[in-house]
Amino acid sequence: MRITKIVETSAPMRSSIANAVIDFSQMTISVVAVFTDALSDGKPVVGFGFNSNGRYAQGGVLRERLIPRILDAEPDTLLDDGGILDPERIHACMMKNEKPGGHGERAFAVGAIDAAVWDAVAKTLEKPLYRLFAERYNEGRFDAKVPVYPGGGYYDAEKGIEGLTDEMQGYRDAGYTLMKMKVGGAPLADDLKRIEAVLGVVGAGSNLAVDANAGLRPETALEYAAAMAPFGLAWFEEPVDPLDFAAHAEICQTYPGPIAVGENLFSLTDARNLLRHGGMRSDRDWLQFDPSLCYGPTEFIRIVKMAQDLGWSPKRHGPHGGQLLGLHLAAGLQLGGTETYPLVFQPFGGFGDDAVIEDGNVRPPEVAGSGLETKAKLYNNFLKPLLDG
Amino acid sequence: MRITKIVETSAPMRSSIANAVIDFSQMTISVVAVFTDALSDGKPVVGFGFNSNGRYAQGGVLRERLIPRILDAEPDTLLDDGGILDPERIHACMMKNEKPGGHGERAFAVGAIDAAVWDAVAKTLEKPLYRLFAERYNEGRFDAKVPVYPGGGYYDAEKGIEGLTDEMQGYRDAGYTLMKMKVGGAPLADDLKRIEAVLGVVGAGSNLAVDANAGLRPETALEYAAAMAPFGLAWFEEPVDPLDFAAHAEICQTYPGPIAVGENLFSLTDARNLLRHGGMRSDRDWLQFDPSLCYGPTEFIRIVKMAQDLGWSPKRHGPHGGQLLGLHLAAGLQLGGTETYPLVFQPFGGFGDDAVIEDGNVRPPEVAGSGLETKAKLYNNFLKPLLDG
Repeated sequence: MRITKIVETSAPMRSSIANAVIDFSQMTISVVAVFTDALSDGKPVVGFGFNSNGRYAQGGVLRERLIPRILDAEPDTLLDDGGILDPERIHACMMKNEKPGGHGERAFAVGAIDAAVWDAVAKTLEKPLYRLFAERYNEGRFDAKVPVYPGGGYYDAEKGIEGLTDEMQGYRDAGYTLMKMKVGGAPLADDLKRIEAVLGVVGAGSNLAVDANAGLRPETALEYAAAMAPFGLAWFEEPVDPLDFAAHAEICQTYPGPIAVGENLFSLTDARNLLRHGGMRSDRDWLQFDPSLCYGPTEFIRIVKMAQDLGWSPKRHGPHGGQLLGLHLAAGLQLGGTETYPLVFQPFGGFGDDAVIEDGNVRPPEVAGSGLETKAKLYNNFLKPLLDG
Repeated sequence: MRITKIVETSAPMRSSIANAVIDFSQMTISVVAVFTDALSDGKPVVGFGFNSNGRYAQGGVLRERLIPRILDAEPDTLLDDGGILDPERIHACMMKNEKPGGHGERAFAVGAIDAAVWDAVAKTLEKPLYRLFAERYNEGRFDAKVPVYPGGGYYDAEKGIEGLTDEMQGYRDAGYTLMKMKVGGAPLADDLKRIEAVLGVVGAGSNLAVDANAGLRPETALEYAAAMAPFGLAWFEEPVDPLDFAAHAEICQTYPGPIAVGENLFSLTDARNLLRHGGMRSDRDWLQFDPSLCYGPTEFIRIVKMAQDLGWSPKRHGPHGGQLLGLHLAAGLQLGGTETYPLVFQPFGGFGDDAVIEDGNVRPPEVAGSGLETKAKLYNNFLKPLLDG
């Protein structure tokens, strides 16, 4: 089996939304196709990947460093003992001559290719990606359905609180039980009113998570934590800068509810520092590493295993990103759930045009690979053009 | 004052050298020119910057995100109260709509522009950059000369130990007293022989630093530390992964000599974590953040101030990078010294064609700006072409 070509393009992932830190009007994403000479149904296998939302396209790193390294490598060094592409060896090839530390754009670029490689391998073996993850990393065990919640409740001055509660009611009507809204982009008193209004829709506090997108100073985050504690929320996500481990430890000492963090840490080493120094509690807190952004599923799986060695059940992970890759990992590694974005980041987000949300759960698609082809708008607008040239 | 244009290019920074982790045969660097409408000697002021060695050029981030943000900004928002370009405001403009965490390629790209902006401001004010740093951040105090040491002693199978001692003797003959060699790329026993041979040239252990370039596992680093302790070396640099703070703490508990770290941490937040969690000792250890790679001199200065608040004297900093920017910061903030690379990373490294090393010290050039124009090969091959095209 050989990689014959790797093609990448930058796509707009624009949205009018804003969170507590950035607006998404200029957001882009890198889409990658890994062409192989393996055949499936008589056609060459092509794996697809992209690099998740919020961190921009990475064409420079892809074209200048990663793709040439793979194409210049002796092809046999990229295969496993069965002669199939080996994601771990290809990962190591991409990281050759890269210095340690500095886990940023490089991680997002590696992640896009790594996702495409895994897609190609699963297609070559003609099985859904989650089953491949289960076989290789979870003794064959998997979850047929996965808890899923919508990330929403963005600030929108025009729609106001009524629009916010309408949005949440829409999620309930669509089959979700747990949902998430933004906080930290308004004064605390206003945010508390927004939370109370949404609780009127979702019922128990355990049905609602709040997300500050790392936009609060530590002292403000502590004020939020104290004010929100009585609600018994599902979790308080990204209260502060994701690398301020000491501030996380302080919040965990006073806030009784779960916190959730990880989407802005992009390596095993950074993730391990969070668990070593962040004071987080393995009986309640959530880990939300993004399997696209953190050097891809290959490194994400290493993070899950590392966390397990430190006493964290795979059930404490809920991958960030809201896309098929996170769903396959959640099913195949039996994680605690995953996110989705019904209203934004389309057509990259979500789980396939036929996906059904039932009692807050969703099933991964039963097709070979990650199933990005089951999203017609994504396939027709962004993947098929890569095939054509 | 207006920025009229920003031009960037990728330049080769190739070298046949290798350290314990990577080889530099494909290394590149981004060179940036910031054009302004300010006049000096009747000609428009142009600031130059580049992004230091070891982390590759960053054309993608520069062209797609940073340069458009600056050029799209309302020009007055980029000026200080005196109507001159304000590096801190331009820095904030570049970081707009960037999420927290993930301090990698983005930091290197911001650093190149930030260096060019500082060069432009110093040229506009017609003073050497170190004096500008001293005025703005050090109550006008500066050091007229700065301790400097050569980073060298790379592995080279052909030249062997004799070539290594010849190289070190050359540094002594050139006026250096302290010098640095690589370790960790050979078995410990071989490295000890290399160190002993070099000590025969440099004399006291305090004249020799060793650098493992983050290539050792923690347990191997501890073996190196134990074996090297009797030598009384100047420092043991980057023993392990730069983000493995717990391993640093363990080494600091047992190794009596100084360690040195920081060149692969690229933000104030990461630097603060090192000081909070790395167990380092402010009475002896060295901090070596790279002022180009860590979001530029603007963020580097914030790191020095943050460290000072945590009890670290500016004299404990010796910036990585071996170029004029580090020398100006060392002089203007009265840091402990800086590095240079007499044999590699040319023509970007070093301090100007007329720079003289005397008793291990060097003086910053007394020209307006950072003085990159005093390096003829750099100017003619890489800077002047940006002016012309």
